[in-house]
Amino acid sequence: MIQAIRWEGDALALLDQRRLPREEVWIRCETVEAVAQAIRDMVVRGAPAIGVTAAFGIALGARAFAGDATDGAQGTGATDRLALDRRLEALHALLAATRPTAVNLFWALERMRRAAALPPSAGAGQVVAALEAAARALFDEDVAVCRAIGRHGLEVVPQDAGILTHCNTGSLATAGYGTALGVVRAAREAGRSVHVYADETRPFLQGARLTAWECVKEGIPVTLLCDGAAPSLMRRGKIALAVVGADRIAANGDTANKIGTYGVAIAARAHGIPFYVAAPTSTVDLATKDGEAIPIEQRDPREVTHVAGQPIAPDGVGVENPSFDVTPADLIAGIVTERGIARPPFPASLARLLA
Amino acid sequence: MIQAIRWEGDALALLDQRRLPREEVWIRCETVEAVAQAIRDMVVRGAPAIGVTAAFGIALGARAFAGDATDGAQGTGATDRLALDRRLEALHALLAATRPTAVNLFWALERMRRAAALPPSAGAGQVVAALEAAARALFDEDVAVCRAIGRHGLEVVPQDAGILTHCNTGSLATAGYGTALGVVRAAREAGRSVHVYADETRPFLQGARLTAWECVKEGIPVTLLCDGAAPSLMRRGKIALAVVGADRIAANGDTANKIGTYGVAIAARAHGIPFYVAAPTSTVDLATKDGEAIPIEQRDPREVTHVAGQPIAPDGVGVENPSFDVTPADLIAGIVTERGIARPPFPASLARLLA
Repeated sequence: MIQAIRWEGDALALLDQRRLPREEVWIRCETVEAVAQAIRDMVVRGAPAIGVTAAFGIALGARAFAGDATDGAQGTGATDRLALDRRLEALHALLAATRPTAVNLFWALERMRRAAALPPSAGAGQVVAALEAAARALFDEDVAVCRAIGRHGLEVVPQDAGILTHCNTGSLATAGYGTALGVVRAAREAGRSVHVYADETRPFLQGARLTAWECVKEGIPVTLLCDGAAPSLMRRGKIALAVVGADRIAANGDTANKIGTYGVAIAARAHGIPFYVAAPTSTVDLATKDGEAIPIEQRDPREVTHVAGQPIAPDGVGVENPSFDVTPADLIAGIVTERGIARPPFPASLARLLA
Repeated sequence: MIQAIRWEGDALALLDQRRLPREEVWIRCETVEAVAQAIRDMVVRGAPAIGVTAAFGIALGARAFAGDATDGAQGTGATDRLALDRRLEALHALLAATRPTAVNLFWALERMRRAAALPPSAGAGQVVAALEAAARALFDEDVAVCRAIGRHGLEVVPQDAGILTHCNTGSLATAGYGTALGVVRAAREAGRSVHVYADETRPFLQGARLTAWECVKEGIPVTLLCDGAAPSLMRRGKIALAVVGADRIAANGDTANKIGTYGVAIAARAHGIPFYVAAPTSTVDLATKDGEAIPIEQRDPREVTHVAGQPIAPDGVGVENPSFDVTPADLIAGIVTERGIARPPFPASLARLLA
């Protein structure tokens, strides 16, 4: 299985997803600042992967600080602990500010906060150890959660299905295995014949660069298409099912996901094709009432006006580059999580799954 | 006004649209073969522009042949004429095979065929002169037709409208002025405040490279967006109207246009936004019953897997690259032509307009 995040004990190695599929280059992050930069610059992306990466960022930042404090040999263990707790707040703020939409980031940071909440008698060293253990646990848990999503997702995958997906929701978007693409993997493991239709997903081209790469690498049949071609393929009967990931699912089921997802959902509805979201329960944010309340990140216009460093638009043109859109709950047939499939009405089914 | 097609008397100069907006390079076509190649390679594109270009191709090919025949000084004027008529059939076949979907190509070739149908007493030289005159007339007529489309289109443009368009339908897609973008030009000339939202239009990026370039060049307010972002902008209330061009309109109103148009129409319907087609009556093909009967060109996968010469997808990936899709008539609020706006039911209104 492809893995794009590797914990090396004293650093976090990230497969640079900006350079795929042309080259496989690893970036070694030895500091929390490097981790934050990697998330901002989309070296790593995908809601679950961002959460796991941020957790390791906290672990790295805590250890660097405790190491510095210990090296200085100033003060007692107790003061070290207080200073570390203060430092952890700053690390949380640094990582929370990297990307606003995916809620898994905040969920993972909250998990790390709880892991650091040891009794006052525990020293800084114990907290550092607990944080590293928590980050590793989060990583392992994400792989297990994705496999469970895949198992539950089997229920909605017909035999010989053309499956349309948008963006990348595979091993590269998670600790491993994937969410929507995890459903595809599970279907294949269960012996079903499936064919992935991958929207290229402009502007960042996660479909062309990442989903297609993962599929080709693992021998999963895949056809790449421009985002605008999906409705035409639906009309021609090529698509039996649409499955996408999610960056934040509100309490009412409204789902923020990569820009373009909403159009896929509208077109799927127009053709009677079931549209599913596959995501861990950590993507569900019951504190967000509905899609209106989800902050949508606007990214650099250059992502739209340039491809592979080349300009494809004239100087001086205005650009809209929202990184996500919101698919309203009424277009979603179900939300596949590691605890089962939530079905409409979502306010009740999501609350039940998360209870 | 931008013009991308220039008749130079002994050659056809084409602004190479593949290299816009980075550089303005003209290609001088001195032979019909060069003209055919330019259409195939999309040096020139856009249904009306392709028609006009093909007409000049016939004129060039006829003159070269007549010149050769005269140079040879073999046979009488009458045999020259018979040979030229045979040669014209070959030229028609060459140009008709360049691109299958846009019907204006076939319409323009038919116009040229009629122009060549002089009495048997007319010599080859007279036919050559008639063909050049016919091509020039077709060019002038296209500009006038586009202006008339713009005038009729005014009826559907609200004040302060955000207008979404797909692909390029401006001066670059016609002899000048444009169809859907002609409606925008006419609205501005009529003093209305409008703002163009231009889908980038993958894979060939006509929106990013051509529509944005035309608008910036002429000071028309324009915002560029990725194709997948349009539904999100509709939901946010930015779009009052969607207008696109057409490559072929069937007798029942089903409309083939650049891939991605169908998705725009579905999304517009979902948001209650009127979706209009703007095209000359030469794009209406009453001989094509409905959308099912329109041949859809599949183009080179490399248009999808490469941008600006750079690979953006892994080797070995399958690709769907239909160049057009069909928007069913029931999603279309009206078809704006130079003779007025056809409204549903289209079988009757189109037949009436073309009568």
